[in-house]
Amino acid sequence: MSDAPLFEPRPPDLPGLWIKDSGPENDVVVSSRMRLARNLRGYHFKPRQEEDEGKRLTEHLHGVLSGLDHDLRWFDMEELSPTLRLVLFERHLVSREHVDDERPRGLAYTTDGTVGVMVNEEDHLRFQVFAPGLNLEAISERIEALDNEVASRVEYSFSEQYGYLTSCPTNTGTGLRVSVMLHLPALAYRTSTSNDDEPGIVKVNNAAQQLGLTVRGIHGESSKAEGDFFQISNQVTLGRSPDQAVGDLRDMLGQVIEWERQVRQILLEDDRLSVEDLVLRSWAVLRHARRIASEEALQLLSSVRLGACLGLIDGVGVTTIHDLMVSMLPGHLQFRDRAKLSPDERDAMRATLIRNALAHSGPTS
Amino acid sequence: MSDAPLFEPRPPDLPGLWIKDSGPENDVVVSSRMRLARNLRGYHFKPRQEEDEGKRLTEHLHGVLSGLDHDLRWFDMEELSPTLRLVLFERHLVSREHVDDERPRGLAYTTDGTVGVMVNEEDHLRFQVFAPGLNLEAISERIEALDNEVASRVEYSFSEQYGYLTSCPTNTGTGLRVSVMLHLPALAYRTSTSNDDEPGIVKVNNAAQQLGLTVRGIHGESSKAEGDFFQISNQVTLGRSPDQAVGDLRDMLGQVIEWERQVRQILLEDDRLSVEDLVLRSWAVLRHARRIASEEALQLLSSVRLGACLGLIDGVGVTTIHDLMVSMLPGHLQFRDRAKLSPDERDAMRATLIRNALAHSGPTS
Repeated sequence: MSDAPLFEPRPPDLPGLWIKDSGPENDVVVSSRMRLARNLRGYHFKPRQEEDEGKRLTEHLHGVLSGLDHDLRWFDMEELSPTLRLVLFERHLVSREHVDDERPRGLAYTTDGTVGVMVNEEDHLRFQVFAPGLNLEAISERIEALDNEVASRVEYSFSEQYGYLTSCPTNTGTGLRVSVMLHLPALAYRTSTSNDDEPGIVKVNNAAQQLGLTVRGIHGESSKAEGDFFQISNQVTLGRSPDQAVGDLRDMLGQVIEWERQVRQILLEDDRLSVEDLVLRSWAVLRHARRIASEEALQLLSSVRLGACLGLIDGVGVTTIHDLMVSMLPGHLQFRDRAKLSPDERDAMRATLIRNALAHSGPTS
Repeated sequence: MSDAPLFEPRPPDLPGLWIKDSGPENDVVVSSRMRLARNLRGYHFKPRQEEDEGKRLTEHLHGVLSGLDHDLRWFDMEELSPTLRLVLFERHLVSREHVDDERPRGLAYTTDGTVGVMVNEEDHLRFQVFAPGLNLEAISERIEALDNEVASRVEYSFSEQYGYLTSCPTNTGTGLRVSVMLHLPALAYRTSTSNDDEPGIVKVNNAAQQLGLTVRGIHGESSKAEGDFFQISNQVTLGRSPDQAVGDLRDMLGQVIEWERQVRQILLEDDRLSVEDLVLRSWAVLRHARRIASEEALQLLSSVRLGACLGLIDGVGVTTIHDLMVSMLPGHLQFRDRAKLSPDERDAMRATLIRNALAHSGPTS
């Protein structure tokens, strides 16, 4: 880590927390995200870079990105405090590797937080665009526009045979990853309680596999699905066009969203008392706990989210829950309090944050 | 079991639920209880009785008990429905053995439920007197009066050398068992978290042992301390007078009550947030759950009881909690609903009962 102080003397404005806004199919879909990996001809891929080359590349791209129409704000990563880096990581604007790396690298983002560009991460450029709910068309257009603007100012590493070349071959071709975060509590519940051959999440996994899509937990690769939040994303970047990748994902998502909605209704009809019990206990604990760890909070927020969607809980929408899912994380709590907090202190502050956010909610009477 | 219908055509009046009343030292002491074992000369002890002898004995004692000044109501056990027997068991007026036995036997109790006499249980007569809180003098006087009245009408099995003779030698001598139900959540918490050589409950156990007292869980012999409720009782009936037994217990109780109160205050000063968290989560779940098993309910009621005593929860007193601890039991739920309930149905009804009872309570603001 760098020698930067724990906090900036004056904190920079954080990017907007776009996940607080509502989006299409928000009852099941939390958010959509697209990223594009690009590299510049004339510079080595990251693993073979000298310090000086990384510096030149970063400065070059700083200049390029600052000249675009997208109103991107630029930051040298080493100038950001550890706490702010953690906040940006928790908002998915930077990867864990980009936080911890010590080589020259940068970050640009829009003030609304929906567009971010990592410079000299695994690839020279990693564009990211985010949107609440299911919004693949909008983010697709936006990332394409960004890509085109940059392409007109630099020369990308590109092969007629393979497409865009990348540091890791798994991204070669389109360099595109599309991923959508889903909340599938009913399918997950059915998976753990059903005797079907192909219950709930298993069915989702099988359908995903046939389309070359992967299903992962909230924290990305090989993570389990905490709080019943699942990321579905494309796996293949070679030999499929961006439009095909988006199309495959959209078709499958339509199905999964319908399955989840159907099973929610079935649960409510067949086992209403169990669903109510789960939802109301979860809400009650969040509304009254004086300390809570983030794993438990995520699990309980997941149940409250289900309750809000099913009309069992009033006065709290899914967007408040999405906000809490980010705001309750360690970096955000410390940034907010401008203090390094012990885990115990964070648990207490997290409980207060959630308690207050749910103050005007309650069981539907 | 007998052929009695599951419910009476008209339910008999239940005895009063005296535990709803408040008593001395109620912050730590739930209830006091005394029982006296007596046998009649001229009848065999239970194990050697013929059917006919048991019947004669029961009829004899029915006559004796009905003639006393104590306003005892008489029941032949075989005439009571299984549900009502279970209710009386849950109120400690009969033992499990007295419920399940198929031989002639009876039960007499006062309408306020504070005095009960089992006839032809393990011994010919088992007098019991109950009181809320710590009230050894009052119940001692009352059981003595009852014993004296009966003694003037029958001839007890008595030996100059050993005292009162009993079916099981562990009761021979005074035939007296005094037991007090304590709520020791702070000492139990300290036991599980402390590094002391002699923390919390261990200290209580050691002190008890030195005085020939035993410490057990809420459900009697060899049960663990569910919900941090402990029964302390005398062990020795031979060679110690009733007054000595009561005196030993009272001395020790005074100490234990003080320890528990001190540790409650220490916890509140040293670790207020943990105590608040435990209490408020427990209250919140009880206030909102839609189904709950009795073990979980007991554990949560225990924490709410602590919270009520520490002023962290308003609008619910210890007596309401004592009432719930009995009213939520399976027999009571079924008697109340006049229906045989499945465990799932009981869990739902229990949740409703508790939720309503706590409707006007809440965290102290």
